[in-house]
Amino acid sequence: MNTPSHLATLDTPAALIDLARMRHNIDRMQARMNALSTRFRPHVKTTKCTPVVRAQLAAGAQGITVSTLKEAEQFFADGITDILYAVGMAQHRLPQALALRRKGCDLKIITDSPASAAAIAEFGRVHGEVFEVWIEIDTDGHRSGIRPDEAALLDAGSALHAGGMRLGGVLTHAGSSYELDTPEALAAMAEQERAGCVHAAERLRAAGLPCPVVSVGSTPTALHAQQLDGVTEVRAGVYVFFDLVMKNIGVCTASDIALSVLTTVIGHQPDKGWAIVDAGWMAMSRDRGTQKQKRDYGYGQVCGVDGEPIDGYVLSGANQEHGILSREGTPDTGIAARFPIGTQLRILPNHACATGAQFPQYHALAQDGTLATWSRLHGW
Amino acid sequence: MNTPSHLATLDTPAALIDLARMRHNIDRMQARMNALSTRFRPHVKTTKCTPVVRAQLAAGAQGITVSTLKEAEQFFADGITDILYAVGMAQHRLPQALALRRKGCDLKIITDSPASAAAIAEFGRVHGEVFEVWIEIDTDGHRSGIRPDEAALLDAGSALHAGGMRLGGVLTHAGSSYELDTPEALAAMAEQERAGCVHAAERLRAAGLPCPVVSVGSTPTALHAQQLDGVTEVRAGVYVFFDLVMKNIGVCTASDIALSVLTTVIGHQPDKGWAIVDAGWMAMSRDRGTQKQKRDYGYGQVCGVDGEPIDGYVLSGANQEHGILSREGTPDTGIAARFPIGTQLRILPNHACATGAQFPQYHALAQDGTLATWSRLHGW
Repeated sequence: MNTPSHLATLDTPAALIDLARMRHNIDRMQARMNALSTRFRPHVKTTKCTPVVRAQLAAGAQGITVSTLKEAEQFFADGITDILYAVGMAQHRLPQALALRRKGCDLKIITDSPASAAAIAEFGRVHGEVFEVWIEIDTDGHRSGIRPDEAALLDAGSALHAGGMRLGGVLTHAGSSYELDTPEALAAMAEQERAGCVHAAERLRAAGLPCPVVSVGSTPTALHAQQLDGVTEVRAGVYVFFDLVMKNIGVCTASDIALSVLTTVIGHQPDKGWAIVDAGWMAMSRDRGTQKQKRDYGYGQVCGVDGEPIDGYVLSGANQEHGILSREGTPDTGIAARFPIGTQLRILPNHACATGAQFPQYHALAQDGTLATWSRLHGW
Repeated sequence: MNTPSHLATLDTPAALIDLARMRHNIDRMQARMNALSTRFRPHVKTTKCTPVVRAQLAAGAQGITVSTLKEAEQFFADGITDILYAVGMAQHRLPQALALRRKGCDLKIITDSPASAAAIAEFGRVHGEVFEVWIEIDTDGHRSGIRPDEAALLDAGSALHAGGMRLGGVLTHAGSSYELDTPEALAAMAEQERAGCVHAAERLRAAGLPCPVVSVGSTPTALHAQQLDGVTEVRAGVYVFFDLVMKNIGVCTASDIALSVLTTVIGHQPDKGWAIVDAGWMAMSRDRGTQKQKRDYGYGQVCGVDGEPIDGYVLSGANQEHGILSREGTPDTGIAARFPIGTQLRILPNHACATGAQFPQYHALAQDGTLATWSRLHGW
């Protein structure tokens, strides 16, 4: 349990990182990757925060994954060179990717169609740059990518290889693992993700194309994979903080969740059993990811200022700067006495990536109660 | 229709303001307030952007409403002195409010309980400051405030007045107007909001307490009030941009919506009729405000780069940096030809306040196609 004394000095709402929990989460994932004998490349879109990423690398991660070129620029400026930009490369962003590579960044980009692969190769040829490109594979139908058995896979591979680019490998992300909630289903999805991506790599190699990297991952599948034969690296993002969506999926407990929003009680509606707090949706984000899961936490789980959950109390509603805190089921008409005006509480978020994005900075809380301010990236 | 030519120079996703639409929205609201013979105090939490607020004041608005003291500080630094901070005053923020007043800001703060009123009066007495305080009235049960007929109203008023503070008035916000969608229901809610707030003012005055200001408002009620007898000012925020939630409520059309997200097509899943765009939830926000309304737009309505809606096409899904664009009903298996890779589109948002907050800046598009960059405030 953390010493909450220093928290009284913070204005609210504030995004708090519990450092002991964060380190535990980093160590857990890295140990799992080590046991599965695979490299690990965290997705930094969750935190967009340099000290967090440094902790991931110090624990053994090799390289990072980013969701925007702005992240790539910031983390390259911080001294990280091995960067995968894991969003399909838009042609108009190729000059920005080129500039990063020319500065010495070992930036990898991705494609999911022969047309986009050909456009990258053409741009590379014109500018005399050998881009390293990975091909995105669709192993679960949830978003983008080429299916492992599609003809387009070899067309895209050829467009890159024959076009003089470096065909670095294949990657996939089983995003539909977020819809599962049993260990068996998650293990099966992890195997589907692995097998599909390895199959795509084998097809490329059988066609005489290079495919050194086979990159898979999502937090739920990374933590449930039984074996990763043929996989060379795993990617995951939200595991570093975890959140209530991940708790419902079954990959963490409430006491693993390292991100919370510190808030203050500013009023009550005692007849309704409501406390009004200063964390509304601007602080929590509008993410209602637990709405369709087995347990709906509204806009978040209420905890004491010590970070321990107060069972049955959730943020049941939110306006921009007002949160409505109430007990599930029977209203707590004694709520004004239980949480008087001025009480500090912490709220665990549905989705750590979305909640973090609402704040320009985190406050990192060490076990001795001391606080550090860590800025995070905003925008594109 | 705007000339889209300059938009090709923007990286995506980008938050665009259509200036002609914004000015039309500002003029429409101000004309309505003038016709109802009431002052207008826009809520700047929607935009948090100085040039927008200047346009509102230039059109005739008197003073502004803010949702955070950071907004108050920024807009006071910009030269605006008449500022209402419309979130229940937390005691730990009183020093910040005091500092603003000492610098010459005519900051008004609010309370919704005798206990909070007494705490403000005590802080004011200790620091020799006469705070101007308004009492929040609950006229529709949606959030915070004292009900017009509650005994607590006079207790709060007395605590302020006898405690040496300036009891400036009463304010209310009929947030539950967002759940309505007929002119009759909106007009009835506007009358409920007006009557409740005026009744609270009359009770204070009958008890010998001052109550010069009677402040009401929300965008839907402001646009549907038939008369505002006894009201001295109206507040509204989202009307300046409007959004799809407001369209469903019936207070604007799609061609009034002044905020959109410019995005680029980065891939396809032709079998499913999907185009993948680079506006995911990080750009649109997680706000799914139209989900329970009469028409659900997913994460937004798709428009051409000229801003004209493309009927039946919505952002049906969103990951952090990926949006899934599809046709409602039957999948459009010709979508790759319709929206080729590299196509720029604009997406109208569910909720302008939430979408704006995802961006560090707006790009303001004039009718001649020229662009200006307008920064907006982030965080607390």
